[in-house]
Amino acid sequence: MSFKPLHDRVLVRRIESEDKTKGGLIIPDSAKEKPQEGEIISVGEGARKDSGELIPMSVKPGDRVLFGKWSGTEIKLEGEELLIMKESDILGILTGNKAAKAA
Amino acid sequence: MSFKPLHDRVLVRRIESEDKTKGGLIIPDSAKEKPQEGEIISVGEGARKDSGELIPMSVKPGDRVLFGKWSGTEIKLEGEELLIMKESDILGILTGNKAAKAA
Amino acid sequence: MSFKPLHDRVLVRRIESEDKTKGGLIIPDSAKEKPQEGEIISVGEGARKDSGELIPMSVKPGDRVLFGKWSGTEIKLEGEELLIMKESDILGILTGNKAAKAA
Amino acid sequence: MSFKPLHDRVLVRRIESEDKTKGGLIIPDSAKEKPQEGEIISVGEGARKDSGELIPMSVKPGDRVLFGKWSGTEIKLEGEELLIMKESDILGILTGNKAAKAA
Amino acid sequence: MSFKPLHDRVLVRRIESEDKTKGGLIIPDSAKEKPQEGEIISVGEGARKDSGELIPMSVKPGDRVLFGKWSGTEIKLEGEELLIMKESDILGILTGNKAAKAA
Amino acid sequence: MSFKPLHDRVLVRRIESEDKTKGGLIIPDSAKEKPQEGEIISVGEGARKDSGELIPMSVKPGDRVLFGKWSGTEIKLEGEELLIMKESDILGILTGNKAAKAA
Amino acid sequence: MSFKPLHDRVLVRRIESEDKTKGGLIIPDSAKEKPQEGEIISVGEGARKDSGELIPMSVKPGDRVLFGKWSGTEIKLEGEELLIMKESDILGILTGNKAAKAA
Repeated sequence: MSFKPLHDRVLVRRIESEDKTKGGLIIPDSAKEKPQEGEIISVGEGARKDSGELIPMSVKPGDRVLFGKWSGTEIKLEGEELLIMKESDILGILTGNKAAKAA
Repeated sequence: MSFKPLHDRVLVRRIESEDKTKGGLIIPDSAKEKPQEGEIISVGEGARKDSGELIPMSVKPGDRVLFGKWSGTEIKLEGEELLIMKESDILGILTGNKAAKAA
Repeated sequence: MSFKPLHDRVLVRRIESEDKTKGGLIIPDSAKEKPQEGEIISVGEGARKDSGELIPMSVKPGDRVLFGKWSGTEIKLEGEELLIMKESDILGILTGNKAAKAA
Repeated sequence: MSFKPLHDRVLVRRIESEDKTKGGLIIPDSAKEKPQEGEIISVGEGARKDSGELIPMSVKPGDRVLFGKWSGTEIKLEGEELLIMKESDILGILTGNKAAKAA
Repeated sequence: MSFKPLHDRVLVRRIESEDKTKGGLIIPDSAKEKPQEGEIISVGEGARKDSGELIPMSVKPGDRVLFGKWSGTEIKLEGEELLIMKESDILGILTGNKAAKAA
Repeated sequence: MSFKPLHDRVLVRRIESEDKTKGGLIIPDSAKEKPQEGEIISVGEGARKDSGELIPMSVKPGDRVLFGKWSGTEIKLEGEELLIMKESDILGILTGNKAAKAA
Repeated sequence: MSFKPLHDRVLVRRIESEDKTKGGLIIPDSAKEKPQEGEIISVGEGARKDSGELIPMSVKPGDRVLFGKWSGTEIKLEGEELLIMKESDILGILTGNKAAKAA
């Protein structure tokens, strides 16, 4: 089974970040209001302008992203908890080494 | 009797999803804030742009969809509980095996 | 006396639906948050676009419609309680046998 | 002294409706949330579109109208209590016998 | 010292209206939610459309106007309490005898 | 160090007005909800229209202005408390003698 | 690892300002509602107009900026606390000596 988000929505799988400081200390789970990392699983085809033209999505499947802790709606697909959110809830894209390691 | 939603509304029949985890464990009904699955029964002809042109609907009767738990208005048609919601309340479309099985 | 709704408003007479389940059980009146049925009595000439052009109404007198329980403003015309609401509060149109019987 | 409403506002004099049911029973004054009748006293020249063009008013002095109970701002002109409201607060126009009688 | 309101704002001096009913009875000051009379002292040059064109003001210095009791911001200019409000807070213009008397 | 406000923001230095009535009485500091005077220190280059064109600012450095008591964000630049606010929070410009004296 | 903000967002590193008055007194940390200083680390490519054209960002990496105390979302990148906010949350740009020293 797969899931196609409508319009400018994206399907995201949360990634537990390694909760360490620069110096290597582990950060407890109770630091609750931080944004979170995730990987884009699938994306909608984009919102449409008044002219009917599609606004292309700025993220694509595989992108490693950050989003606010309270963004999105949790859904369960085949027993896995995923998130659906609007592209506008995505704060930005992580690039480089660490992201590559995680992918 | 049938029901034609106005504008960009859709008529949806809720589908009780099989509440199992990947491993086969049954999930109790009390997990209340999850979005839900449904099948599109009928759709309006779409909203209209300022130019008068119709914006075509992105879902069609028979589509298996996910929507937020609190989306839509419950109505009763011939004794059956259905939901009317706007297309914008639909999070996305389920495709593939499981959806086929359910249809 | 008659009443002409302004712009995109409609005048609606509530219809008490037969509160029965498919199996014929009567549903008590206390199920209070359900949308309701009504018959369109008269309609405004429609809202206007910026260009001044009328946006034609999607419902017409005689249509059997559903609307949210809390939609509209109650008015009394010649002792009869009616509802004035915007067309956008109309969820959809009932068609076919039952509607015909009721008309 | 006269009063010229600005833009799309109208000046309205409330009309105490005959509070009787069809069967002739008098309805007590405590039925407080009903819309009310009024007569249009004067109207503004209308709102303006971005193009600068006037949007003509849909009501005119002498019209018998219904409006929501809580619509408008009460003002006192020469000791008489009147209401100023926007045209969009007018629900519709009463026509025919009863209105004629009242005018 | 003088004061030039910015954009579509106006500077207004409140006028204590003669609080009498038609029959000559004096109305106590505690009737607090009524709109109020004022005289326009100065006006801004008007808001601007997207095209950059000025939208001319609909009131001018000397106009006797009504406005909602809670409209505007009180300022003190050379010890005198005045009001600054947007033109859209002005309900309408008083014309004719009484206004003339007051001017 | 200097500070360049972004877009349609302005940097303002509060001016303690002489709190005297016309008759010369001093007004206590506790009259808290009045707008306040200030001098414009620097201005942004203005907001932009959809066309990309700049909307020129209506105030300039040196202008003596009034603004609402709760407008703006307080910042500290080199130990001095200043205010940053949007041009739309400026109620108007003071001109003439008193303003000159203060400048 | 680096981070690319989406659309008109910017990534900001807070700068602890030297909390001294002009006269050299140290200001305690409890002055909590003041805006804050930061340095722009990276910027998005800008929001898009309806035409699809990019609106260029008004800040660039290295800029020393002020923003409201409650602006932005805190994120942690490689153990360092940073802020993501919209360009519209940036109040203005600091220039000149002090900013240079800090860069």
